[in-house]
Amino acid sequence: MRGEIICIGDELISGRVGEGNARYAMSRLHPLGLTVGAVVIVGDNAQDIAFALRQALGRADFVICCGGLGATDDDITARTAAEVFGLALTESQRMVANLRRCFQAMGLELRAETRKMAWLPDGAEILCATCAGFKLSGPDGRPVFFLPGVPREMRRLIDESVLPALLGRFGHDAAVLSRKLRVFGLEEAEVGLRLEGLAQGVAGASVGFYPVFPEVQVQLSVLGQDRPTMEDALDGLEGRARQLLGDHVVGGDDGLEEAVGRVLRARGLRLAVAESCTGGLIGHRLTSRPGSSDYFDRGLIVYSNQAKQELLGVTADSLERHGAVSAQCAAEMAQGARQRAAADLGLAVTGIAGPGGGSDEKPVGTVFFGLADSQGVRSQGYLFRGGRAMIKAQAAENALDWLRRYLADDAFVRGA
Amino acid sequence: MRGEIICIGDELISGRVGEGNARYAMSRLHPLGLTVGAVVIVGDNAQDIAFALRQALGRADFVICCGGLGATDDDITARTAAEVFGLALTESQRMVANLRRCFQAMGLELRAETRKMAWLPDGAEILCATCAGFKLSGPDGRPVFFLPGVPREMRRLIDESVLPALLGRFGHDAAVLSRKLRVFGLEEAEVGLRLEGLAQGVAGASVGFYPVFPEVQVQLSVLGQDRPTMEDALDGLEGRARQLLGDHVVGGDDGLEEAVGRVLRARGLRLAVAESCTGGLIGHRLTSRPGSSDYFDRGLIVYSNQAKQELLGVTADSLERHGAVSAQCAAEMAQGARQRAAADLGLAVTGIAGPGGGSDEKPVGTVFFGLADSQGVRSQGYLFRGGRAMIKAQAAENALDWLRRYLADDAFVRGA
Repeated sequence: MRGEIICIGDELISGRVGEGNARYAMSRLHPLGLTVGAVVIVGDNAQDIAFALRQALGRADFVICCGGLGATDDDITARTAAEVFGLALTESQRMVANLRRCFQAMGLELRAETRKMAWLPDGAEILCATCAGFKLSGPDGRPVFFLPGVPREMRRLIDESVLPALLGRFGHDAAVLSRKLRVFGLEEAEVGLRLEGLAQGVAGASVGFYPVFPEVQVQLSVLGQDRPTMEDALDGLEGRARQLLGDHVVGGDDGLEEAVGRVLRARGLRLAVAESCTGGLIGHRLTSRPGSSDYFDRGLIVYSNQAKQELLGVTADSLERHGAVSAQCAAEMAQGARQRAAADLGLAVTGIAGPGGGSDEKPVGTVFFGLADSQGVRSQGYLFRGGRAMIKAQAAENALDWLRRYLADDAFVRGA
Repeated sequence: MRGEIICIGDELISGRVGEGNARYAMSRLHPLGLTVGAVVIVGDNAQDIAFALRQALGRADFVICCGGLGATDDDITARTAAEVFGLALTESQRMVANLRRCFQAMGLELRAETRKMAWLPDGAEILCATCAGFKLSGPDGRPVFFLPGVPREMRRLIDESVLPALLGRFGHDAAVLSRKLRVFGLEEAEVGLRLEGLAQGVAGASVGFYPVFPEVQVQLSVLGQDRPTMEDALDGLEGRARQLLGDHVVGGDDGLEEAVGRVLRARGLRLAVAESCTGGLIGHRLTSRPGSSDYFDRGLIVYSNQAKQELLGVTADSLERHGAVSAQCAAEMAQGARQRAAADLGLAVTGIAGPGGGSDEKPVGTVFFGLADSQGVRSQGYLFRGGRAMIKAQAAENALDWLRRYLADDAFVRGA
């Protein structure tokens, strides 16, 4: 049993955009014994799409096509599929309804150009109520999936529609239960080494992982029939994975923003943030959650030293003696943010995002963190690698992780 | 003229490793008019490699194979190529010498297993002195390149061997010149409608566009030989596109951060930002540019009303009479930020990102902007569509666009 994946898009074939959808699909299929023999990437070109599709239909047991389902003129996947399958292209009223519902949810009305997305090959099976994905039956009923190229939608359809359908068809009439672990501070290769053999000896278990910078996300899956048994197996896998990965595990299905926000709200704590090198990214991440105003009071983006002094009361003396990028400054920033906002917690970040501003003593990537509560303040320096964007992303993640660790155990500050 | 790329490796087909080599090759070839029609990814499997190779030889003007040239048992690309080309596999003494030199350079002696890398199809042209890459001639002398999968080596060979060889052979010294236009405030479909037929009648011209929310980015390209002619054609395309898209064009190759930052620095202006619903995203975008500390002094993320009063001097009276989401509040926030930071410009955003907090009078997506300079302040409300993340992204983009429009014409504030 052997499948093929076809990725469609001029942005892929020009090298403008990297192909990540096929990799995700393979990382999910492979551990379940659903082998992919070949991936073919073509542009939004009817001839190339048709050729790849005909060829895949001729030799593959299942086919997954990604991309070209949008509303613009160069999205021709559905039309081309209809030609290859010899089916008429007609407007699916169910897809029209789905599209209208989705657009209404976003406060948009469905426009004529967008309705183009509802024109599907006759007999297409619509895969979900919230996107343009559909399924056709090839020779001998071989499933051929057509998924949107938008990674978020594509990944959801792989997990919720494609995997179950393929597992149903190819023998194991079984389900897959999955859990996610978010890992921060370990490179992908290191995560792979630590988790090597984790699934061995666990019936139906598989472990996949992929980088979502600055995290590496680990997907634990168990294939089986009996849900309680599968849950037990997942518990075992997760427990061992957490041991092997230590406190580099920063979250599960929820990201740090959700997890931290939930606890802050539950405990009625209010937070003030002082950001230098992250420049607002921490505030942006915290406020990406609805209702974050319940616990996020304010953020001070103190880029200049003057701002650090005026807004946070960092002393000229510490700036002179230790510099703006120092444990001392991070501590004063955290305490200043907490006190001046009359908040329960003050979180601070100051560092060198680069490319300029580094020194032998404090190279680019040097970032100090401060966390203050009513009992005291903890501050500490880290060194991150990468370019400016990567350093900012790692610094923001680490700041939120400090918050997570504190909320799990107040001694994180008091013990420092 | 149209090529194909074949990427070989079990690590690719299992999703364990992301494919980056083909993307690099395409990003280098495409601008030179060396079109890639398809990319095929297969595992270290003789049958799949042979099939992909035969097929590419049958229809492509050039072929680039990456991977499977190593010393381990599963590296079978050279052997498979010999079979497909009907050539004997013999030990290349020149490759043996190359390998020995490389290993000596690393202080290692050449081991028997490693010599396997020197067994190449008869007549293979060795591409460099430091790696296992080689070239064969297909039907009609079509070049077929075999490159190592190691990205560093593969990329060097693309630049130093493959590009010159292809440009030599397909010697229309044609190149592609491209320009980007960043569009904000129009949906992708609308951009498509407005630009329909733009490239018609312009030799070698093409127009592509793709959404990079909240922008739609338009790529104008011209393929040709004579650079001045091509530049003229691009000028014409860009001029017409700007007419058709109006002031929705917010930038070119540079994003708003770069463009705005450059002018602020050139004019020696310092900026203070006050963010409510964007929660730090504007600061994050501004500080994504190296050296932004030259013009970005500070940002105030004033999520609570109390923070708006304490940090910006917004009056209780206006909060009571107009509410935190109002033109009045946005104006006071901008002026407060500017005055308290002793900055030249104050930029403010306050709105309802949702999903909660909306009303009939001020629905979710209502966002007010304020921009203050020494002459006065402008404030105005907008209504954005979409979910929380989309509203934040559009609000931040619009705030930076206000800055762009002000820096292009100070009357943007004074005239208000």
